[in-house]
Amino acid sequence: SLAAPALAQSNPKINWRMTSSFPKSIDSIFNTSVEMTKRIREASDGNFDIQVFAAGEIVPGLEALDAASNGTVELCHTAPYYYVGKNPAYAFGTAVPFGLNARQENAWFYQGDGMTLLNDFFKKEANVYAMPAGNTGAQMGGWYRKEIKSVDDLKGLKMRIAGLAGQVMEKLGVVPQQIAAGDIYSALEQGTLDAVEFVGPYDDQKLGFYKVAKYYYYPAFWEGGAALHTMVNLDKWNDLPDQYKTLLKTASSAANSEMLATYDYRNPPALKKLVSDGAVLRPMSNDILNAAFDAAQGIYDDLCAKNADFKKLYDSMTDFRNEAFLWEQVAQYGFDHFMMIKQREGALKVKG
Amino acid sequence: SLAAPALAQSNPKINWRMTSSFPKSIDSIFNTSVEMTKRIREASDGNFDIQVFAAGEIVPGLEALDAASNGTVELCHTAPYYYVGKNPAYAFGTAVPFGLNARQENAWFYQGDGMTLLNDFFKKEANVYAMPAGNTGAQMGGWYRKEIKSVDDLKGLKMRIAGLAGQVMEKLGVVPQQIAAGDIYSALEQGTLDAVEFVGPYDDQKLGFYKVAKYYYYPAFWEGGAALHTMVNLDKWNDLPDQYKTLLKTASSAANSEMLATYDYRNPPALKKLVSDGAVLRPMSNDILNAAFDAAQGIYDDLCAKNADFKKLYDSMTDFRNEAFLWEQVAQYGFDHFMMIKQREGALKVKG
Repeated sequence: SLAAPALAQSNPKINWRMTSSFPKSIDSIFNTSVEMTKRIREASDGNFDIQVFAAGEIVPGLEALDAASNGTVELCHTAPYYYVGKNPAYAFGTAVPFGLNARQENAWFYQGDGMTLLNDFFKKEANVYAMPAGNTGAQMGGWYRKEIKSVDDLKGLKMRIAGLAGQVMEKLGVVPQQIAAGDIYSALEQGTLDAVEFVGPYDDQKLGFYKVAKYYYYPAFWEGGAALHTMVNLDKWNDLPDQYKTLLKTASSAANSEMLATYDYRNPPALKKLVSDGAVLRPMSNDILNAAFDAAQGIYDDLCAKNADFKKLYDSMTDFRNEAFLWEQVAQYGFDHFMMIKQREGALKVKG
Repeated sequence: SLAAPALAQSNPKINWRMTSSFPKSIDSIFNTSVEMTKRIREASDGNFDIQVFAAGEIVPGLEALDAASNGTVELCHTAPYYYVGKNPAYAFGTAVPFGLNARQENAWFYQGDGMTLLNDFFKKEANVYAMPAGNTGAQMGGWYRKEIKSVDDLKGLKMRIAGLAGQVMEKLGVVPQQIAAGDIYSALEQGTLDAVEFVGPYDDQKLGFYKVAKYYYYPAFWEGGAALHTMVNLDKWNDLPDQYKTLLKTASSAANSEMLATYDYRNPPALKKLVSDGAVLRPMSNDILNAAFDAAQGIYDDLCAKNADFKKLYDSMTDFRNEAFLWEQVAQYGFDHFMMIKQREGALKVKG
C-alpha cells in the first residue's frame, strides 16, 4: 500500500454543514451564505466543503445557533439578536436600538473591542466562535395601517416586533405580538394586527404589505445596521486546520462587504416600485424618536445594572458610538448631505 | 525518482510580487495589502506566496499599474485615479468629484455594472484585471493657510491637488501645484503653497500640516469614498489556477471591508487630537460646493463628448448615483441624522 503523501495533509478533506436562519426567499441573505461557502470550496480545490441548509430544512431558523452550539451542525449563518431570550447581550452582535450603523459596526467589530468581547461572550454562553458575515444597512421602521404622528398614536397598537426593539415599543404603549410570518398579511388585512416591522424595500416588496398597511415608516431606530455572523461550534473551530480557519474568516469578511452592497444596490429600485404601487412613505416623528431614545436608555440602565455581559458590551459600544457619530458629522455627512440636496434638485440625473 | 503526487497539483507553489502605491507610513492602506497577502499565504498553506513591496522599493508609487501592466510585477495595490493622465476614465475606479460614497461604490462595483465596465476598460488600456480592495470613506477637503469663505477666496490659491479634482478647482480659480510629498510642509510654511489636500484625520495628523495651514476643510467633494484595487497582469491572472483566483478575489473583498473599518475606527480620535492641537475645522461653503458641482458638470460634459470610455462609465455611475442618493435619504439618513443630533446633545455618552 502507498501512504498518503505528506502534501495532501495541507488540504485535508472536510465536510461541514451550515444551517441558515433564513429561507431561500430572503435571497440577499441566503445567497450570501451560498456564495461564501462556494468560495471556500473553490479556494480549497473542493476539499473544505460546507453544505448550506435553508431555515427549516434541517433546523428551524431561530434555532440555528443552538444547532451550532450543541454540534448538530458545525456552523450557522444567523443574526445573534435572535437569541436575546437567552441573554439580551446577544443583541450587540446584530443591532441594538440607537446603536451603530453598518460602517460603525464593522469598525467596532474588527478594529475596536467588538468581536473580542462578543467572542468571549459567545464562548461562555454557547461554545461558538463568530465572524461578521453580512449587514443589511439601516432598515425601515415597518408597515402601519394608520398614520403614526405622535407617541399617542402608538398606544395600544398591536405590532409584530421582537427583541429589545419590542421592549422599547412596549414602553411607548405598543403591544408587541408574536405571529408566524405566513400569518402577518391576513392579520393586517383583518385588523387583528396594526403594524409589522420587517427589513427594507427589497425584502418587504415581496410580501405585499403595502396593500393592507400602506404607511411605510423610516427609519428602524432599532436597526441602524443589522449584522449577521458565521458562528462555528468552538470544538470544531479549534480542530480546524489553520489554513481553513483563515479561509473561513476571509470568506466571512468578504461576505460582509458584499451583502451590504447587494442591499444597497437592490433597495433603491424596490423603494421606487413600492411607492408607485401605493406605499406611503413617512418619517418617524421626532416626538416618537426622542421618546423611544429615552425609553431605550431606561432599558439599558436596567440591563447594565443586572447583567455584567450586557454592561461590558454596552460600555464598549457606547464609547465608540459617541466618537463615531462626531466624526460622521464631518467628512461623510458633509459629502452625503450636499449630494442628497442635489438629488432633490434633480441635478444627479444628468447623463453624458 | 518519485513523481509528484497528483494531489499536490491542486495547490501549486506560486511566488508573486505585489507593488503598492503607498509607503509603509500610510499604514492603514499599506497594512491592508500585507494582511491580504498574509491571508492568501495562510489559506493556501504557504503555496500562493505574494511578497508585498512598498512604494519605491522596486517601483515608484505612481507607476504601480505600469509595473503590473508590463509584467515587471504580477500585481499591484493602487488607486486607479492615479492614472487619469493616461485616460480620465481611470478615475471611476477610485472616485470622481461628486460621485459615489464608499457603500455606493461597493454596490455599483459588485452588483451594478461597475467592475464589469471597469475591467473591460482596464483590459483594453493596461492588460490588467482589477478587484476592489480597500476604501478610505469620504476624505477631508484639505489644509488651508487662510479661511476660504467663498469662491472669490479660491482665486489664485496655490493648492496641491491633482486629477479631476484639480481640474475642477482650476475652473474656480485655483492654481493646482505639483510638488513632492516631502516638500509640502516647508512650502506651506514659506507660503509658496497655500493649501494641500491629503486624506483624512488619521493620515493627516502624522504630517503636522495644522501647524502651518490650520484651516481644515470638509468634505473633499472629489472623494465621497476613495476605492483601491488589486490589479493583476491579465496574462498572469489567466494562468492562475481557479482556486487561487477565488482566493485572491475573496481576500481582496475582505480587505475592502476591513480597510474602511480601519479608517472609520482611527479617524474619530485623530480628528479630536488635531482639533485639540489647533486645527480649525471649517465646512466648505455652499457657494463653493455649488460652483464646484457646476464646474465638474462642465468637465464631465466635455469628457463624455470626446471620450467613449469615460461616457460609458459616467452614464452607468450616474444612473445608480441618482437612485442611491434618493434611497439614502430614507432609512440610513433618517437613522444617522437623528443619532448626530443626539451626539451634539451629549446624549450618546451615557454609559451603563
